[in-house]
Amino acid sequence: MKFEEKTIKRTEIFKGHIFDVVVDDVALPMGGEAKRELIFHKGAVCVLAVTPEGKLILVKQYRKAIEQTSYEIPAGKLEVGENADPKAAALRELEEETGYTGELELLYDFYSAIGFCNERLRLYIAKNLVKVENPRPMDEDEVIEVYHVSLEEALALIASGDICDAKTIMAVQQLQLMRK
Amino acid sequence: MKFEEKTIKRTEIFKGHIFDVVVDDVALPMGGEAKRELIFHKGAVCVLAVTPEGKLILVKQYRKAIEQTSYEIPAGKLEVGENADPKAAALRELEEETGYTGELELLYDFYSAIGFCNERLRLYIAKNLVKVENPRPMDEDEVIEVYHVSLEEALALIASGDICDAKTIMAVQQLQLMRK
Repeated sequence: MKFEEKTIKRTEIFKGHIFDVVVDDVALPMGGEAKRELIFHKGAVCVLAVTPEGKLILVKQYRKAIEQTSYEIPAGKLEVGENADPKAAALRELEEETGYTGELELLYDFYSAIGFCNERLRLYIAKNLVKVENPRPMDEDEVIEVYHVSLEEALALIASGDICDAKTIMAVQQLQLMRK
Repeated sequence: MKFEEKTIKRTEIFKGHIFDVVVDDVALPMGGEAKRELIFHKGAVCVLAVTPEGKLILVKQYRKAIEQTSYEIPAGKLEVGENADPKAAALRELEEETGYTGELELLYDFYSAIGFCNERLRLYIAKNLVKVENPRPMDEDEVIEVYHVSLEEALALIASGDICDAKTIMAVQQLQLMRK
């Protein structure tokens, strides 16, 4: 079966710091045309980090898109040029947000919202976590609180809706699978 | 700790069929200002559907945002007015894409890309799946192939990158947890 949608015309809508927006006119594989509204994003990293005490590290932060705070695993966007070394970006975010460093291993590599957005998220697991003496400071516009929670507490946070984002639920599921 | 970012000014960038784009100037809780680029989306539904033979139903489709095909669980956007009844939307998508219907139960409710987008995805599990005699036809611009795969095959598709989106990986992990 033919699947590919060939681009006939691309209209650039917005060039931002976080993402770009375009609308493509595409030729459908079975004939006819359609419009595709698309978000282009540089990609991001996130880290499933468990302390030597067996607690999952979460950061509480405000998310303007939903006008609420949420509890999430440490994460961050790739900066320009970091595409070549996302693991370094993940280590930086882990240290900045939690004060820990460790050995990272890639668990999954996935698209967050594949229907309209090319944001690729890399989920790492951090092993042999250790405290950094003088951790790198956070970004100026970030306000976060760090929590160490047990698997049971994490599952309760999902049930209560305080954990409400895909990457963090995936990380908790992964932790559950590892503990079974 | 104060977390809230108050909106000072909202600039509307784009009003689309799939999403809207705005840029907010916000007052940071610790003082100072920042810009937030945001995507507003009507929300979507997806379904973890296992056949009576114990196979997970996946649909292969082309995704323009990544210029590739991917294998995903059945899913679809909420149409205008469906916010009040997302389960009906999930049943419709399941029937249109796979020819099956069943009893749906909400597993998780989550944001796909919480850092910049308010798309809320509802993941349902379908129980007592049965074939529909004359299923509703698909949307005109959709080209899909339906696959029934075992859990082991689904895990292999994740490893090969053919399954590469968050909602489908979450559903497969959920299936793994249920089988353990």
